[in-house]
Amino acid sequence: MSTTNGASKDSQLDPNQGGDANKKTYNKHATGLAWDTAQAHSSEKELKLYGSCFCPFVHRVWISLEHKKLDYEYVEVDVYRKPKLLLDINPRGLVPALRHGDWGCYESTVLMEYLEDLGGNISLLLKDPKIRAHSRLWSDHINRHIIPLFYRYLQAQDPKDQVQFAKDLQEQIATLVSAADEKGPFFLGEDMTFVDVQMAPWVIRLEKVLKPYKGWPEPEPGTRWEKWVRAIENNEAVKKTTSDDQLYLDSYERYAENRKNVSQTEG
Amino acid sequence: MSTTNGASKDSQLDPNQGGDANKKTYNKHATGLAWDTAQAHSSEKELKLYGSCFCPFVHRVWISLEHKKLDYEYVEVDVYRKPKLLLDINPRGLVPALRHGDWGCYESTVLMEYLEDLGGNISLLLKDPKIRAHSRLWSDHINRHIIPLFYRYLQAQDPKDQVQFAKDLQEQIATLVSAADEKGPFFLGEDMTFVDVQMAPWVIRLEKVLKPYKGWPEPEPGTRWEKWVRAIENNEAVKKTTSDDQLYLDSYERYAENRKNVSQTEG
Repeated sequence: MSTTNGASKDSQLDPNQGGDANKKTYNKHATGLAWDTAQAHSSEKELKLYGSCFCPFVHRVWISLEHKKLDYEYVEVDVYRKPKLLLDINPRGLVPALRHGDWGCYESTVLMEYLEDLGGNISLLLKDPKIRAHSRLWSDHINRHIIPLFYRYLQAQDPKDQVQFAKDLQEQIATLVSAADEKGPFFLGEDMTFVDVQMAPWVIRLEKVLKPYKGWPEPEPGTRWEKWVRAIENNEAVKKTTSDDQLYLDSYERYAENRKNVSQTEG
Repeated sequence: MSTTNGASKDSQLDPNQGGDANKKTYNKHATGLAWDTAQAHSSEKELKLYGSCFCPFVHRVWISLEHKKLDYEYVEVDVYRKPKLLLDINPRGLVPALRHGDWGCYESTVLMEYLEDLGGNISLLLKDPKIRAHSRLWSDHINRHIIPLFYRYLQAQDPKDQVQFAKDLQEQIATLVSAADEKGPFFLGEDMTFVDVQMAPWVIRLEKVLKPYKGWPEPEPGTRWEKWVRAIENNEAVKKTTSDDQLYLDSYERYAENRKNVSQTEG
């Protein structure tokens, strides 16, 4: 796409800007601690994560890789210039995608299960079948009930809708919290496990996106929810894969303003 | 609810009949081979499946239990009279639900994973992490892309919508079939595994519900799709958990006519 002046007309304005050059679009590379982590994992490895730095579904898999201390390569993907090795895995080039040798797969929950199945010393899914089922049940709750509301609320322009969706989202989170271990601080107790990682990218984005754009409140001090949020925010793997605040503000502006034709990265 | 004449006024007309006593509602017990299987599994066991005979999500778990030759009890649940042991698992009393001793869980895919985690001689998820990921990825495709279209198509009253949804459903099925083992007859090859069981209840209902109500076509002879459909239809565990045709016709009339307030069993 490059021309003599270094950028084609087409590439100057990203469709996510909705025809206005002053509007923000998603970031093309991580910042802050996540940038350091991406750099530290830029050399070629058999296990590769294809991701976009702002994408919460990518964030899940990235946290898993870091938490499990696996040897991997991080490949930043621009949603408009998808690499062939990614398109080989899925013609739509959805991220997150993992490539492991000559094999690849996508969908964040499927990839997290794959990393568990690989074994290793640090597990997010425990051995007891009942605890595994409990973890999967509440991961399903996050995917089915919390995530769709997050986007509906973020994109809502009508104040009445905003009030309703905020209330709905609070309720769905309360249901999830009521299923967590009483003491915590994590979902199953002292250690970060599957449900925590499934939820972590949204915990981060409640604070960094929903709070500035829609006034999402800080967790009430002393509650089980606050305890969980702080445990997730302070987890090493979460911190190492989280960019600076500005990246999330910029990357989600297109959603918060409910612009048409925003790109899909979902998975 | 019973009165002196054996049935209360309330119970004579089911809300699913939409105020018309001539309309069909869901069946309260299995028929045909599924009835025999329910009877053969009516004595108390530690592992209990709470289900409603017409529900495709229940069907998945029931097929799994039969295929894996597990020792279980089948408990038929009337969606309007939910037993306490079921409500203990989930206050909404969603089916399918499994109770195993004093523990319980719900959501068909979570329950199928639980039965795999229990071990035993017959597995639906193979050991190779890559094959497990492949199975989960395409199960997700069924849950996200095929099932919603099935209901949208079944409930569509506008002929134009029906044409569009039929086309969309064909396409999503074609995508799934293109990911299957070339030879088959099942998704991964000779044996029935996870994706087959996830899809089986809808294969049965394409034939027994969508065909009579919307003219869904028989699979084209000689195609990979036909080979798969026949393998599923002729599988012992599928046959043993499938009722007679009339049960599906009756139970889905309320959807096919898109009646208001049909009960939700989903899971």
